[in-house]
Amino acid sequence: MARINDAFLKLKAGYLFPEIARRVAAFAAAEPSAQIIRLGIGDVTEPLPPVIVSAMHRALDEMASRQTFRGYGPEQGYDWLRQTIVAHDYCDCRIEPDEIFVSDGSKCDSANILDIFASGQNRIAVVDPVYPVYVDTNVMAGNTSEAQDGYFGGLTYMPATEANGFVPDLPDGPVDLIYLCYPNNPTGAVASQQTLSTWVRYAQDHEAVILFDAAYEAYISDPAIPHSIYEVPGAREVAVEFRSFSKSAGFTGTRCAYTVVPKSVQGLAADGGRVSLHQLWQRRQATKFNGVAYIVQRGAEAAYSQEGRQEIRSLVDHYLGNAQIIRRTLEATGFEVYGGTSAPYVWIKTPPGTSSWAFFDTLLRKTHVVCTPGSGFGAAGEGYARISAFNSRAAVEQAMQRIRDRLDV
Amino acid sequence: MARINDAFLKLKAGYLFPEIARRVAAFAAAEPSAQIIRLGIGDVTEPLPPVIVSAMHRALDEMASRQTFRGYGPEQGYDWLRQTIVAHDYCDCRIEPDEIFVSDGSKCDSANILDIFASGQNRIAVVDPVYPVYVDTNVMAGNTSEAQDGYFGGLTYMPATEANGFVPDLPDGPVDLIYLCYPNNPTGAVASQQTLSTWVRYAQDHEAVILFDAAYEAYISDPAIPHSIYEVPGAREVAVEFRSFSKSAGFTGTRCAYTVVPKSVQGLAADGGRVSLHQLWQRRQATKFNGVAYIVQRGAEAAYSQEGRQEIRSLVDHYLGNAQIIRRTLEATGFEVYGGTSAPYVWIKTPPGTSSWAFFDTLLRKTHVVCTPGSGFGAAGEGYARISAFNSRAAVEQAMQRIRDRLDV
Repeated sequence: MARINDAFLKLKAGYLFPEIARRVAAFAAAEPSAQIIRLGIGDVTEPLPPVIVSAMHRALDEMASRQTFRGYGPEQGYDWLRQTIVAHDYCDCRIEPDEIFVSDGSKCDSANILDIFASGQNRIAVVDPVYPVYVDTNVMAGNTSEAQDGYFGGLTYMPATEANGFVPDLPDGPVDLIYLCYPNNPTGAVASQQTLSTWVRYAQDHEAVILFDAAYEAYISDPAIPHSIYEVPGAREVAVEFRSFSKSAGFTGTRCAYTVVPKSVQGLAADGGRVSLHQLWQRRQATKFNGVAYIVQRGAEAAYSQEGRQEIRSLVDHYLGNAQIIRRTLEATGFEVYGGTSAPYVWIKTPPGTSSWAFFDTLLRKTHVVCTPGSGFGAAGEGYARISAFNSRAAVEQAMQRIRDRLDV
Repeated sequence: MARINDAFLKLKAGYLFPEIARRVAAFAAAEPSAQIIRLGIGDVTEPLPPVIVSAMHRALDEMASRQTFRGYGPEQGYDWLRQTIVAHDYCDCRIEPDEIFVSDGSKCDSANILDIFASGQNRIAVVDPVYPVYVDTNVMAGNTSEAQDGYFGGLTYMPATEANGFVPDLPDGPVDLIYLCYPNNPTGAVASQQTLSTWVRYAQDHEAVILFDAAYEAYISDPAIPHSIYEVPGAREVAVEFRSFSKSAGFTGTRCAYTVVPKSVQGLAADGGRVSLHQLWQRRQATKFNGVAYIVQRGAEAAYSQEGRQEIRSLVDHYLGNAQIIRRTLEATGFEVYGGTSAPYVWIKTPPGTSSWAFFDTLLRKTHVVCTPGSGFGAAGEGYARISAFNSRAAVEQAMQRIRDRLDV
């Protein structure tokens, strides 16, 4: 009989966002007149930039004519897009176009990257709290034992706390794979050049690989903060970087991202040889992926035009403006507030003695505002909540008005 | 140090189509005046149907306005698309909309499905010759030992030959996972109701799971041939089915497909319990995939409109017309010819004593026509070549004229 992957059974039944959806639906059913404002899930709300829409309409017209029709594209993305990405995002970083792998999402890539690593043979470090996909995909890949008290055996959890400014210390012992996400989801923290240098040095010393998720890099407002880990010398030898058009160009429903795998990053084979991860990822993508739709790649290309960059800047500034309003209101209301200056997420401490989920329920009941309970991101997120800045200005202002009027801290 | 997945190193260095591309490029460089006609790779050439293009333009306009913008969709596809698929493709088959998982490609799905099965613990059967992705993804998942003489240890190869009409016999012993593809790539063979019933009964008897690839079902011209394995009683308990818009609606560069995982198909857990594959695949897709672009799903939906179905019928008939011309010419030239009546592929026997690659080279040199060497699909494909019907009528007619004029068999 066909044997299933038993590792799946270790996953907790409820993923965070379905549970939020369940509670919101129950509340909406009980109070049908409530005008619910969603500042929970990190999903963009503003339309695609006009120059991107125009480029996609043009590409679609090309698909309608035999002379300009496109069938299968290269699995790794069209050369013109890979070159454009390098010219704009990596002009100072010694990244080559053929080290860019265009894909349909950073979630997919940060999950699928485990295909090229040995199952159950790597020591894996994640930050706590953490984007749940890093943990769940390691569980599914057989890299953990059962969960106890919210922690999966076999993973090294690195707490991000107020004490360390939500940027964790290096692990005590050696690890082989390290997931880092800056600007951070969920805490909104950023990593300085010095922080990243420390991590790169650690990875060099332990021959570890850093999986660097930079999906929110467009939100960095402090010019001293690196946008890419490759701004740090040595990172080309130890880091893979994930980037996305989702939160910058508003592509969550359009699907385009890319992953940088420098040819100089290596892993260890069973025979003691060293193998380029680039070669493995190239083979993985060629075999298990068929590339991103032509029209979507043309949209992503337009994001780099002069107009496109301006329109994206406006989009990002809009969400950062929301984040500032959220920060100010919550500070004025008496909350301890983190993040939200170089990230679309504000991370707040719940009132003393109030758990993350209790705060979620109170906020929903009193103000009809949806947040994300910090504990959903890991045990160290308990006692926190994430407020997303992804919404219209009017909705954010109304949500903050309600919090001012109806919430006591 | 980070340990790599050593199974990747068992893969042969050259994938079939890159090797073809290399030889064609070398030939084109040596004979720059040659007008090469490509009947190799199975990629569509005709434009997207107009009604699909219109639906995608409209969807794109929705993305340009705040009121109608769409962010993240459901990972498994929008309900309206899943319902439309069931209403048209499975109205008689007891398949429910929530058993349809919309994705970006059948290649991806037929590769990723291995995530939900235990590594190295299933006996896996593939047809020989075979779509290389089934084999290569099993190698990558650690389900095989090294290759010897073109066969990977640990896989059960089922030869498809002239003797069995390119529909293999049941395996001698029990297997747990069976890959079937009908209409077949590369041989163009179809599976009758009786053949599929035999396989379903085998799967029931051995509690095996059939992975049924129906990417070419739109090409079935014989009304007696089932379009779905679910037309066979009992298949709902033993089969997963892959379907694609690539070869029907011309979506190879647009990317949409779907996989059917009935709730009634089960696998065995380590503790002896039985687990629904539906639940595992649902979790896999929610964790590692972010859904298909909204505009693409609207395009796929339009494929089912009355106009859409007519336009797709014309597209498929165009390619089937090409296949008929190819069949006739090659038969008249003296080849033994198979397939091509319910599939966009014609499978021909190479002249006595001529290997698949030797024939490829001869055909390219004498006629400037590109085919696919049968041996690229497996050892039992040696001595055959696949001619694809995907091209314009003019290109196919010209290619056949050259074969008539310049090729001796």
